[in-house]
Amino acid sequence: MSTSPTVTLKPTGAKLPQIGFGTWKHYGEKATEAIYAGAKAGYRLFDGAADYGNEKECGEGLRRAIADGIVTRDEVFVVSKLWNTFHRKEHVREAVLRSLSDWGVSYFDVYYVHFPISLAYVAPDVRYPPGWFFDGKSQVKHDPVPLRDTWEALEQLVDEGYIKHLGVSNMASALLMDLLSYARHRPSVLQIEIHPYNAQERAVQYAHSQGLAVTAYSSFGPLGFRELDSPKALRTPALFAHPTITSIALAHGRTPAQVVLRWATQRGLAVIPKSNTEQQRQENLQSASFDLTQQEMEIIGGLNIGLRFNDPADVSARDPRTCRSSNDHWLVQDFEGCHIFS
Amino acid sequence: MSTSPTVTLKPTGAKLPQIGFGTWKHYGEKATEAIYAGAKAGYRLFDGAADYGNEKECGEGLRRAIADGIVTRDEVFVVSKLWNTFHRKEHVREAVLRSLSDWGVSYFDVYYVHFPISLAYVAPDVRYPPGWFFDGKSQVKHDPVPLRDTWEALEQLVDEGYIKHLGVSNMASALLMDLLSYARHRPSVLQIEIHPYNAQERAVQYAHSQGLAVTAYSSFGPLGFRELDSPKALRTPALFAHPTITSIALAHGRTPAQVVLRWATQRGLAVIPKSNTEQQRQENLQSASFDLTQQEMEIIGGLNIGLRFNDPADVSARDPRTCRSSNDHWLVQDFEGCHIFS
Repeated sequence: MSTSPTVTLKPTGAKLPQIGFGTWKHYGEKATEAIYAGAKAGYRLFDGAADYGNEKECGEGLRRAIADGIVTRDEVFVVSKLWNTFHRKEHVREAVLRSLSDWGVSYFDVYYVHFPISLAYVAPDVRYPPGWFFDGKSQVKHDPVPLRDTWEALEQLVDEGYIKHLGVSNMASALLMDLLSYARHRPSVLQIEIHPYNAQERAVQYAHSQGLAVTAYSSFGPLGFRELDSPKALRTPALFAHPTITSIALAHGRTPAQVVLRWATQRGLAVIPKSNTEQQRQENLQSASFDLTQQEMEIIGGLNIGLRFNDPADVSARDPRTCRSSNDHWLVQDFEGCHIFS
Repeated sequence: MSTSPTVTLKPTGAKLPQIGFGTWKHYGEKATEAIYAGAKAGYRLFDGAADYGNEKECGEGLRRAIADGIVTRDEVFVVSKLWNTFHRKEHVREAVLRSLSDWGVSYFDVYYVHFPISLAYVAPDVRYPPGWFFDGKSQVKHDPVPLRDTWEALEQLVDEGYIKHLGVSNMASALLMDLLSYARHRPSVLQIEIHPYNAQERAVQYAHSQGLAVTAYSSFGPLGFRELDSPKALRTPALFAHPTITSIALAHGRTPAQVVLRWATQRGLAVIPKSNTEQQRQENLQSASFDLTQQEMEIIGGLNIGLRFNDPADVSARDPRTCRSSNDHWLVQDFEGCHIFS
């Protein structure tokens, strides 16, 4: 069975698997099966979030894997994220306890602030997960909360043992710098969109300089957003067919996916690709078993055009009622992330 | 005598001149003469900063203009900025009072946080202005201070009447959003690098949506940085020779500088160009006396490539001791500002 290389997290010294299992867009019984199969294939990190709407199902997969003796709880990193509607101090605990209960675990190894954006609270009995839109369809309703309030509530949960490491996601370096000036428990990980079209060299450099590990999401660039009919992703050349990537893959006898992932892990990043099949699970997990040359690293880095697919500005700036074409549907239904505020 | 159009500042309703007088890189007696001549030409906003190292000389120009009856104090906007080494609560007042004293005024119309970056304090009797480097030559020494602490100290000075409007400069939207969640006195203005190569559409949209006016600095793109031998600026085609700009200028019987400034003011931005001669002072101040067509606005906007010249990452990431070539000298000596953290 393959295993992933690791990076060391501050301040605990825990070993974060560099190749984790992304749970976004796994739904229902298939999510349960995917997590179980992932554990069996050797994955030791499951990257979840309340917003993905599948924590119960993912948790069920993990429970089965533990019950069948495939992994023990302390061998896996279980990861979740605070959704935007739970930023007020009084809602942070509720959100964390709900996610813990859904996953069926007593602590998270990493718990992220999903976005540095605070939206109006939606009670879980009204809608869970609540998504971006206050009424579920058409209103993004901001409810400004200082990040420090949210962070202090999370720190309390670290003190109580519910969270081993805090993380921040989709956070611009300026805000991270401010957070670091007052954090009693510093974030251990930054998770942002990184792929060859969006190399994020400065954000990575800054986070590393401050002792944070960095997790790349959407390592395959447009691919994950094509599933959602994102027009921007559909217009962008697939990385797996890009001659730069395919020629390097050919030279190493690897797949394009492995080349793209190795480019990230060789930069010291963690990745959390989505795998839909056993073949993909193996291919992704084994992607660190070869090395790219320095020149190849630079050639792939040369594809960078600062192109983000997961961008809240695309949500906030638009009235979803006008998103009527099938091309725009993804914005409303399944939007996940990112970086306007960066 | 020309006058500038204005934009209305919240919360006071004060009228901010859209075309102001930039004081960066005016030195000595020439700075004094420039401010005096600017007032005479009709400028009613002087954009200064402690870091520019010329507030005494600029203030002297203003005093002469007032003494000669060219302007009254309440007709002009006097603007200054808090340098990075004064972010601790206990140093904010000292910095503001020093700048007020240098300018010879009892209040600032706008006072900005120059960068959202806090550096170790340098006592004024050691070096003033202190610049980026702790020892004046080779060390950028950070001293993390929560922005909220700095802001609360500035709010106190608003309460005391020393500052009419607060501003933020070189600030990413994510951090601005956080600031807006706790500010008792909200910032009235955002000042960032904006020119056709760096249109900053999202930052402008966000600031305007939150009721802030936006001031564009470095409206002429690489020009101001060529004076400093910035290699990046020297490599970039001058806007004034760019066929897109020159052809539009020709069509209107205007200068390229006027076209570039009008592109900004027609977006509702304020500008603070540097003028070295009487001709430039007039040309810049009269730049709002014609209108670009919507199509011309879009064509100019199409030059945007997200190119910043004023970038602290270029300072912080480098050891200035390695900046030995004349091309790199500008980084050490005269570096002014910006946006890594965005």
